[in-house]
Amino acid sequence: MSLTDLLFGKPLASYEDRTERISAIGGIPIFGLDALGSAAYGPEAALTLLIPLGAAGIHYIIPVSCAIIALLGIVFFSYRQTIDAYPSGGGSYTVASQNLGPFMGLLAAAALMIDYVLVVAVGISAGVGALVSALPGCQPYTLHICMATLVVITMVNMRGVRDTGAVFLLPTYLFVICLFAAIAIGVLKTIISGGHPTPVVQAATLGPAQGAISWWLLMKVFSSGCTAMTGVEAVSNGVKAFREPRRQLARHTLTIIIAILILLLLGIAGLCSAYGIGASEAGQSGYQSVLSQLIGAITGKGWFYYVSMFSILLVLVLQANTSFADFPRLCRAVAENGYLPYAFAIRGRRLVYSFGIYILAFLAGLLLIIFGGVTDRLIPLFAIGAFLAFTLSQAGMVGHWMRKKGALSKSSVLINGLGAFATAITVVVVIGAKFWEGAWITLLLIPGLMIFMTGIKRHYSRVARAMVGPKVLSAADLLPPLVVVPIEEWNKVSQKAVRFALTLSHDVIVLQIDAGEKKENLANKWADYVESPLKNASLPAPELVTLESPYRYVVLPILDYVLELEQMHKDRQIAVLVPRLVANHWYENFLHNQRGTILSALLLLKGNQQTVIINVPWHLSA
Amino acid sequence: MSLTDLLFGKPLASYEDRTERISAIGGIPIFGLDALGSAAYGPEAALTLLIPLGAAGIHYIIPVSCAIIALLGIVFFSYRQTIDAYPSGGGSYTVASQNLGPFMGLLAAAALMIDYVLVVAVGISAGVGALVSALPGCQPYTLHICMATLVVITMVNMRGVRDTGAVFLLPTYLFVICLFAAIAIGVLKTIISGGHPTPVVQAATLGPAQGAISWWLLMKVFSSGCTAMTGVEAVSNGVKAFREPRRQLARHTLTIIIAILILLLLGIAGLCSAYGIGASEAGQSGYQSVLSQLIGAITGKGWFYYVSMFSILLVLVLQANTSFADFPRLCRAVAENGYLPYAFAIRGRRLVYSFGIYILAFLAGLLLIIFGGVTDRLIPLFAIGAFLAFTLSQAGMVGHWMRKKGALSKSSVLINGLGAFATAITVVVVIGAKFWEGAWITLLLIPGLMIFMTGIKRHYSRVARAMVGPKVLSAADLLPPLVVVPIEEWNKVSQKAVRFALTLSHDVIVLQIDAGEKKENLANKWADYVESPLKNASLPAPELVTLESPYRYVVLPILDYVLELEQMHKDRQIAVLVPRLVANHWYENFLHNQRGTILSALLLLKGNQQTVIINVPWHLSA
Repeated sequence: MSLTDLLFGKPLASYEDRTERISAIGGIPIFGLDALGSAAYGPEAALTLLIPLGAAGIHYIIPVSCAIIALLGIVFFSYRQTIDAYPSGGGSYTVASQNLGPFMGLLAAAALMIDYVLVVAVGISAGVGALVSALPGCQPYTLHICMATLVVITMVNMRGVRDTGAVFLLPTYLFVICLFAAIAIGVLKTIISGGHPTPVVQAATLGPAQGAISWWLLMKVFSSGCTAMTGVEAVSNGVKAFREPRRQLARHTLTIIIAILILLLLGIAGLCSAYGIGASEAGQSGYQSVLSQLIGAITGKGWFYYVSMFSILLVLVLQANTSFADFPRLCRAVAENGYLPYAFAIRGRRLVYSFGIYILAFLAGLLLIIFGGVTDRLIPLFAIGAFLAFTLSQAGMVGHWMRKKGALSKSSVLINGLGAFATAITVVVVIGAKFWEGAWITLLLIPGLMIFMTGIKRHYSRVARAMVGPKVLSAADLLPPLVVVPIEEWNKVSQKAVRFALTLSHDVIVLQIDAGEKKENLANKWADYVESPLKNASLPAPELVTLESPYRYVVLPILDYVLELEQMHKDRQIAVLVPRLVANHWYENFLHNQRGTILSALLLLKGNQQTVIINVPWHLSA
Repeated sequence: MSLTDLLFGKPLASYEDRTERISAIGGIPIFGLDALGSAAYGPEAALTLLIPLGAAGIHYIIPVSCAIIALLGIVFFSYRQTIDAYPSGGGSYTVASQNLGPFMGLLAAAALMIDYVLVVAVGISAGVGALVSALPGCQPYTLHICMATLVVITMVNMRGVRDTGAVFLLPTYLFVICLFAAIAIGVLKTIISGGHPTPVVQAATLGPAQGAISWWLLMKVFSSGCTAMTGVEAVSNGVKAFREPRRQLARHTLTIIIAILILLLLGIAGLCSAYGIGASEAGQSGYQSVLSQLIGAITGKGWFYYVSMFSILLVLVLQANTSFADFPRLCRAVAENGYLPYAFAIRGRRLVYSFGIYILAFLAGLLLIIFGGVTDRLIPLFAIGAFLAFTLSQAGMVGHWMRKKGALSKSSVLINGLGAFATAITVVVVIGAKFWEGAWITLLLIPGLMIFMTGIKRHYSRVARAMVGPKVLSAADLLPPLVVVPIEEWNKVSQKAVRFALTLSHDVIVLQIDAGEKKENLANKWADYVESPLKNASLPAPELVTLESPYRYVVLPILDYVLELEQMHKDRQIAVLVPRLVANHWYENFLHNQRGTILSALLLLKGNQQTVIINVPWHLSA
């Protein structure tokens, strides 16, 4: 136990729950890492699509970023309202299913689950990819490093929310401070130089324009840039994890995260335009990320550059953590409604929903292994889920306010309606722009997952229906069972079993198998060994039945016999009493046949409601 | 089941046993393959050590072969007597343990077991090695081919003895006919040419002499050549597998095998000497095996050469089969004396000792994997076991005759005594000559295996002692058990469990766990749901006990409670009644917690003789 405690922390009692709640300062790394980390690749993804326009194309980043920021603002106000309306955690799933019905809820849940898994795989592989391009010697170990990172993140999350916050606090704030400092210096230099700053390190030169701007291209740029918005729903999903006063702390946390993200996006877009920095083709020699070029141009490649790049790398890897905070919570909510196995709703020893964490780690690990740690092609798959969830969440909020019908709710309906409208259009744009690049996979996975979850719900409903009945216990027909005792030899073990059978019922059948191998035949001694001592004690004697087994099977004839008994005595319980030898050490089990185990398992599976299996252990140590 | 039948044959009833017995013609491939296949590497191993003597060294092969053949003759007469004395199978193990005591028996068994495993690994890898040097394209798949061969041999053996014979008949007789034909032609050519035949294909030229002959070198040559004798004990070990009249058929089979082997050894030695063929250094470029050179020199490299080489290759691979016939029989004999798990003594569906076959395949596969299918370095390990077993077997026969004290037994004592003496000296010579090349490993493994088997015997004896007692059943103190019913919720499942408990005993305790999660508290409804209906039926009501579980564990508090009850009621059986949900499909089990399974397993392990586990299943299908 001490190793487990060391790795995962001591178990926490249910009453220690409150102490695991977090503050706003702690909440930013936990719920904001995903959103903030997106700033490192959102602008880059948008600028990449502008490469064909050459140097002239860079400036389109400013209107596109403004559009994204406007959308972000709308989404922000929408989620602020969600936090207020759902203080116990209003993820897209909860809001959509409560206000738009279970179908829409499942749609949101499926979209989000896929997104969370993708975020983990993409985040880790992107971070490790950056590390590997910095240290080419690690290249052959890409997948190993990815998997090791996944294991570390999983273990940290198994320890619980508060500990997680502590680990991720430093990298998150380092990332924010570095980028803010770089942007501040850049803005200052731009102002001093009258809008045309001189880069300290010259950025990559941009090729000549090879195409013209079009609305279609701008739509694609916008939809790529929208990846910068993934992760902003995390706070509203996890309101329950905050310390009291929950709503305020959650709202503050969301406000801070969105504010930082807007400043980052604005700063990056503006400075790229001012310094004339565009994306370079990934995978080509001389490739440098946009942020690398930008910080190099502003501050030169000194210690600040390296600290900044290191913090970006860390945040990319660690943004997977947002999923680890949110995926298990989402699964718990879905499981509580019966659409996922109940195990997702059980809190583990450290008060986290361990099962969700394991499943997320497993699925992300699977993705990493399938794609060998290089998951670039998964990126087009993963904005759809987020925006679909945004849309459903805000449409759900519209439904929420409509039913309230108060004075306050009119403006609320407007805000959420605008959010739903804007994000719905974004979903359409993203699907249209990325359909053939991978969006179709997500569009197949979402209904698949929904069908799966509906199947689970149907199973649980069937079970629940089968198990309810009158609450009052029926006292009728309490007949003792018919007891069957299969024995191998006549020794203390089988005698104990027969004695126990006699305490349960007067109808006992002792079963011996004659497989033609040498064995004493109990039939000859039955009168001496069993019948006469019981007669002397005025007790009824059990019946001895011998089954022939020409094929030397032992377990199957017993099973068949019991199944026949069931048919013959439909009104009685058939209790099969299986003597079990229990060894002192696990390896001693190899020295004894495991027929007792096999027989018990088969009876459980093949028997009907009449069959009961009684294991009478004989402990060798005693 | 039909796939199993197709692969392994239909199950055979015990009364079909006799039809699986074999004839002399069928016995030669089954029990002779190992001995005959040895002719392909025994002379080669001897000649390899003569390489330093150059061309002059070749002629020493004749006296060495004569010595080996003399030894073979002695061993032959010894084993003939063993077959007569032990018609039900007189392997070295049986003979040594019955006449020299269990210690010597175990020594023989351990030596043989190691030898059998080595024969399988060495045989397969040598055969595949020959194939691979003929077809260099297969080189990268050496291990795969080895493992595939092992699987095929294992499956063929699982079908049973007679089928095995059919598969191995053709290659064995092809091998014998080819070698006999080549030897006959060679002898004829030698006689016609007056003792100096001209090779059709010139053999490799031998280097100049680099050393002189010495007794030490001759001893090493002799002990390497003795590998040609491994496998001759197989017939005496498997007498039981022959058709009636057993003894005669077994004796005939042994005689034919030994006669063929002697002719092969003599022919190969004489012709090598006549044609001036020596070994070439294995692993060097231009390497050719002695038999390849010899057949090439006699007949040229036409179709006959290739057919012969192919048959040698097949026999090398298939000689592993002798071990598959013998290892399970040896293990059965050892297991019947309690020195190995009983599973070795149980006949499988095809009347073979399946467990022994699996274990042999597993161990040989392990060796093949560890050595990557190249097991040349294992060869020095594997004559010791065989000769140790020969010695013990014949010493045992001496003991056997001594106790008989008849007129006939004097010559018998002499024959077996000579056999024991000659093979004992061989063991010493082999150990001395090969100690540092690997014999030390065998010398460590043998006592290790003996200690292991003694441990098993000790365990079985302890269990047997613990289980015997008075045969007459005690009718005293037949008290109904104290029944504990842990329930999760109050529904049909738990009601069925409580009702069943009430049929068993008047002392029933219903246990519910309060883990602080939302759950109805049964305590408030107990009187309505349970007590009053039972009171109306004039039945005693069970007691309700609620256990607090702050750490949300469910199974552990129940276990602790039961263990406490055991202490409090030392005179009673405690029956724990575990309600079990049984799903229709295996995958549905993932949707339900497996606490019932875990609780049952823990109670079995941690409980004492008082605890009994009752599984009351609830079948969802019903």
